[in-house]
Amino acid sequence: MSVTYPAGFQAAAVAAGQKSSGAPDLAVVLNTGPKPAAAGVFTPNRFAAAPVQWSRQLLHSEMSAGDDSSTPKAVVFNAGGANACTGQAGYDDSAATALKAAECLGLKPTQVLIGSTGLIGKRLNMEGLLAGVAEASAALTPDGGQAAAEAIMTTDTHPKTTRMELPGGWRIGGMAKGAGMIAPGMATLLVVLTTDAVTDNATAQQALAAAAELTFNRIDTDGCMSTNDTLVLFASGASGITPSAAELTTAVARACFDLARQCVGDAEGASHDIAITVKNAATEAGALQVARAIARSNLFKCAVFGNDPNWGRILSAAGTVPADIAPYDATQVDVSINGVTVCKAGGIGESRELVDMAASRLVSVDVDLKAGKQAATIYTNDLTYDYVKENAEYPT
Amino acid sequence: MSVTYPAGFQAAAVAAGQKSSGAPDLAVVLNTGPKPAAAGVFTPNRFAAAPVQWSRQLLHSEMSAGDDSSTPKAVVFNAGGANACTGQAGYDDSAATALKAAECLGLKPTQVLIGSTGLIGKRLNMEGLLAGVAEASAALTPDGGQAAAEAIMTTDTHPKTTRMELPGGWRIGGMAKGAGMIAPGMATLLVVLTTDAVTDNATAQQALAAAAELTFNRIDTDGCMSTNDTLVLFASGASGITPSAAELTTAVARACFDLARQCVGDAEGASHDIAITVKNAATEAGALQVARAIARSNLFKCAVFGNDPNWGRILSAAGTVPADIAPYDATQVDVSINGVTVCKAGGIGESRELVDMAASRLVSVDVDLKAGKQAATIYTNDLTYDYVKENAEYPT
Repeated sequence: MSVTYPAGFQAAAVAAGQKSSGAPDLAVVLNTGPKPAAAGVFTPNRFAAAPVQWSRQLLHSEMSAGDDSSTPKAVVFNAGGANACTGQAGYDDSAATALKAAECLGLKPTQVLIGSTGLIGKRLNMEGLLAGVAEASAALTPDGGQAAAEAIMTTDTHPKTTRMELPGGWRIGGMAKGAGMIAPGMATLLVVLTTDAVTDNATAQQALAAAAELTFNRIDTDGCMSTNDTLVLFASGASGITPSAAELTTAVARACFDLARQCVGDAEGASHDIAITVKNAATEAGALQVARAIARSNLFKCAVFGNDPNWGRILSAAGTVPADIAPYDATQVDVSINGVTVCKAGGIGESRELVDMAASRLVSVDVDLKAGKQAATIYTNDLTYDYVKENAEYPT
Repeated sequence: MSVTYPAGFQAAAVAAGQKSSGAPDLAVVLNTGPKPAAAGVFTPNRFAAAPVQWSRQLLHSEMSAGDDSSTPKAVVFNAGGANACTGQAGYDDSAATALKAAECLGLKPTQVLIGSTGLIGKRLNMEGLLAGVAEASAALTPDGGQAAAEAIMTTDTHPKTTRMELPGGWRIGGMAKGAGMIAPGMATLLVVLTTDAVTDNATAQQALAAAAELTFNRIDTDGCMSTNDTLVLFASGASGITPSAAELTTAVARACFDLARQCVGDAEGASHDIAITVKNAATEAGALQVARAIARSNLFKCAVFGNDPNWGRILSAAGTVPADIAPYDATQVDVSINGVTVCKAGGIGESRELVDMAASRLVSVDVDLKAGKQAATIYTNDLTYDYVKENAEYPT
């Protein structure tokens, strides 16, 4: 169901000649609701791909603010090529894709968002893509959500979808792709969220930005920020229900969290998900920085792959965060792994032998800074042979 | 020869019960020269190990400044245990080690520097260590440099030594250990440099700090900062030659560069060394940040292991550095791999097919920001199955 679970949406997927396997690689989602609104969050990477440049200007420029007739109502996502670092020609390809979709869907080109994923530094097969846009546009259906979620997969092993019915009867649906090049600081991967709630562009944007900060920006599978992260929210208004801004934000955050955890659960080559919670920090920002430093330690991530409760690698990573960012006393810090306090007051705690990491995919790391009352959690993965294999052999 | 190549130094190595293999694991180096001077650079990690805390205070506290009779003249290094995150008991162990060495060598305890390497969060075998200190102190010899270099190895596959004779006949020698947990921001690994030049503590400290910044702080094998990095320089004065501060700095930097490159060349599991040069940056600091961001990209490092000239992963990493730190125009950036300009002006350049990465261990990446005249190089390694294996199975 994914993006077509709420009322007022249609989707379709086709094979458009981008994936060498010949599998479906192009998805179109259309907002057919009575009161359309749209929002987007994008990668801050300075080599942002052409589709990101295209979509960002549609959502974040003055022209679209408050003007319903120019609100983006469709998104075209393709896998099989990122259209990043492709210069002006690549940008023209994204614009041509929007133009084609607009023509097929009866929209203005500036109402069509574009997202791409795949290899950086390669032009798309535009002949296939434009034909695919026409084919998909003609095949749009209120049942197309699942096929769309499958078409945008790259190294994902399964499609990622979410759906939720909220009190009063309005709904949220969504789809995501993402298994590698996932790190905080980004917006996210390729994600479309849909809702049949009634809202406006500004409220939708605030809700989406707040939700992304607490969910997609707190997963970090491999420390690598993408050039193509694109998170789009469409509201159709088809339910006739107008949730409060807080209700909308909470619901969008729940949907984002569900999809974000699915991305961590399917991260390239991973054998463990790791939830790193830093608590009793002076500030939430400091807690986040410490958790991120740990999540980026290859040595720690290798140890988790080896089911080794190597807490020294946790502290050595925590110790790289400057004191002005996260004040704490190194001689007071506790570390627990799966509930066993292996480090007490910066020194040796309970026996490592008590920690069983092989029993479940999820490993919980809790770092108690004893420096305040704030906390934050980052989700990451272990570093495995299969991660190296997948990323040493990814075809160029 | 290593640390005993210059006149005025003795060294010895013994098995002191720290390595489970029973191999030599303790080295003592003594400065016997007529005009001793000493300097040190240490990890900034907030979980700095007990031996770092001990040594740092000897070299960087007021008591030693300008007072020849308190200048540190000996160093005791052990492998087989880092003595990090071991609390007050661990600090007391380092102090006891210095006390024992001082007693054996006729020095004050505050003249004995300590360095440790190995697993974090485990107490040392102090009975073995103190017996080893006595045994090594009695075995000191002007020929002991090579044995000392071998004793401090952990996951290193071979000892790392350097030696150089400078104009006028003064000399520098050195030894280093280090194959993992190597990242900038640290001082370095465990390194002793010796010289028979005449100098004073302040000049030696300035020379060493400047040399470390340009050498050890520009290698980054795995992004992980150690808790135990310790770089010590001893001058004996035995040559009777007083080089200028600039001559000393240049010579020390050459010796450091030699050892640093050897560490990259022996990094855990690596199959390639990678030299990442960022040129035509507005500032050297900006060039460094961009080079470091690339050196930390697991995706890029996996691609190098796969002999894949995946320049998109280079740019996506470069694009994470904020514009205020490294101003440049993303549509102007060129990237060359082994001399082939695979990316021109932020877009597709020469064919990837022209790049041969399998031919040599060294891979050269050049990023031309076209934003100024500054440049910097970071040395790193690829990310391989063997890195994961070594660090998933490293015994705790």
